[in-house]
Amino acid sequence: MKTLRQLGERGLIRQLQRLLPCGQCVVVGIGDDCAAVRSGAGGKRGGLLLLKTDAVVEGIHFNRRAAPRQIGWKAMARALSDIAAMAGRPRWALVTAGLRDDMPVRFVEDIYRGMAAVAGEFGVAIVGGETVRTRGPFWLSVALAGEVVRRAMRPRSGARVGDAIFVTGALGGSIAGKHLAFTPRIREAQWLTRRGFVRAMIDISDGLARDLGHVCRESRVGARLTASAIPIALAARGSLERALTDGEDFELLFTTPARDAERLMKAWQRAFPRLSLTQIGVIIRRKGIRLCDDAGRSRPLHEDGYDHFNPSHA
Amino acid sequence: MKTLRQLGERGLIRQLQRLLPCGQCVVVGIGDDCAAVRSGAGGKRGGLLLLKTDAVVEGIHFNRRAAPRQIGWKAMARALSDIAAMAGRPRWALVTAGLRDDMPVRFVEDIYRGMAAVAGEFGVAIVGGETVRTRGPFWLSVALAGEVVRRAMRPRSGARVGDAIFVTGALGGSIAGKHLAFTPRIREAQWLTRRGFVRAMIDISDGLARDLGHVCRESRVGARLTASAIPIALAARGSLERALTDGEDFELLFTTPARDAERLMKAWQRAFPRLSLTQIGVIIRRKGIRLCDDAGRSRPLHEDGYDHFNPSHA
Repeated sequence: MKTLRQLGERGLIRQLQRLLPCGQCVVVGIGDDCAAVRSGAGGKRGGLLLLKTDAVVEGIHFNRRAAPRQIGWKAMARALSDIAAMAGRPRWALVTAGLRDDMPVRFVEDIYRGMAAVAGEFGVAIVGGETVRTRGPFWLSVALAGEVVRRAMRPRSGARVGDAIFVTGALGGSIAGKHLAFTPRIREAQWLTRRGFVRAMIDISDGLARDLGHVCRESRVGARLTASAIPIALAARGSLERALTDGEDFELLFTTPARDAERLMKAWQRAFPRLSLTQIGVIIRRKGIRLCDDAGRSRPLHEDGYDHFNPSHA
Repeated sequence: MKTLRQLGERGLIRQLQRLLPCGQCVVVGIGDDCAAVRSGAGGKRGGLLLLKTDAVVEGIHFNRRAAPRQIGWKAMARALSDIAAMAGRPRWALVTAGLRDDMPVRFVEDIYRGMAAVAGEFGVAIVGGETVRTRGPFWLSVALAGEVVRRAMRPRSGARVGDAIFVTGALGGSIAGKHLAFTPRIREAQWLTRRGFVRAMIDISDGLARDLGHVCRESRVGARLTASAIPIALAARGSLERALTDGEDFELLFTTPARDAERLMKAWQRAFPRLSLTQIGVIIRRKGIRLCDDAGRSRPLHEDGYDHFNPSHA
């Protein structure tokens, strides 16, 4: 009998998708950062409801040395980052916690303090949820509902040949600490889409190479990256490899029409002087991702992300 | 250092509530069956968005003998039952699954088939979610979004002195099998509220005594139950005690103005000939719940539900 380890996470998701009913009011369904649906409840026309859940598990997404506030912060901020990728406004969260009954109350409270801190910073109300008992590793699942104006939403499939490829911040080495304390790029994503700078957008959770791969596949294009342009985080200690493949950067990766690239850079520096924005390449017709050095030589770049059930890909 | 076992689940939730930001657009927040919020995304005026998450854990909510389709059915149907309690229309679900990598793929697929079956029956689209790896008991968390017209919504706090108290179906003994295969009372709840029969409503998940206690406390009233009227499920083998305190019946418990009780019973029998509806008591001014025998003698009824972290209450 085949196990999940043998099938791998992506294989499992492909098989499960075929089993699930997906209604007519669904604008963006399984596979993008969030689901986007047309709701009959509420006010404005042209508004969509964004829905996302994200879970973290002890021993997988954080270890025993992580502070409880950071665990809570990360659990909430991950889901916020997915709303950011859709240029949405996060609104309401429900938190489900699977807890062991020998956990100190203070520890659990600090987890919730961490969640409340980042939720409060982005105007999100925690409106419900529950705690259940587990005998295994403890876990937190955050369900987030947000809103987006339909024409501001930028799915992964919008990249066009010739587009400039940008990333915010610097990449790689998140495991050294950033993954527990990052700022979801909600404000930046809304600013970018409001000004019409974005054709396709994603948040980098699986690593630059893999997430750019998602954008390219869904947009049916390829990408050429300039190796020397890729911003390497201090924590990645100069390793381009890590900047390309480490997960959990939670920066924005997006494409912009080439003619707007210069105007974008200038406006960005005024709006966000403390967060770098870097053009790292261009969208090309030829499928796949190529990495170019300064001499113009290029090699194909293999995505090498993180597969939950398949340690050989980890 | 105090642990969750010592504090108990209700104590924990009380402490956590104080830590959480709760926004102005929240109509019903933490503590009711669902959160109800005013969304700016979407169409109709007077519509509210209902949000609910519900999790099941191996070894707690089901055991190793349960069929995977039943596990999936239960995970989804529990959340649907909470939407029913608010007289809402369930619309979209996201499913998070914490899975061990030695689980057979077929077993996991059958879990999702069970979820898809009950979701499909009630017009719910499964629009996203994720799988995460766990090394402990496996779990499923269902996040459900639904819609309700504001004036149709019946919170727990609406009961008035003199109201008749009704339950659907028969109670107790759910653990023998019904808890894995119940039908959420979505249609019945909508029918009841559309016709104006309901003042306060809840679904029975913690047991009749405890859930009626919730309604009484939030409505600041008491209740007098007629022992001989309480419908005992076959699986409870004639035990009134079990009908009063067993959890996971997932029937509707609601109150109706006394003058409407007879009209309700007649209309119900025409609309739902295969599901019983029983008046089990009345709402009274005096706080607490009293249980009366046919001779008119009464005794106070202690709620005795299920506390996840406190085995002494289990």
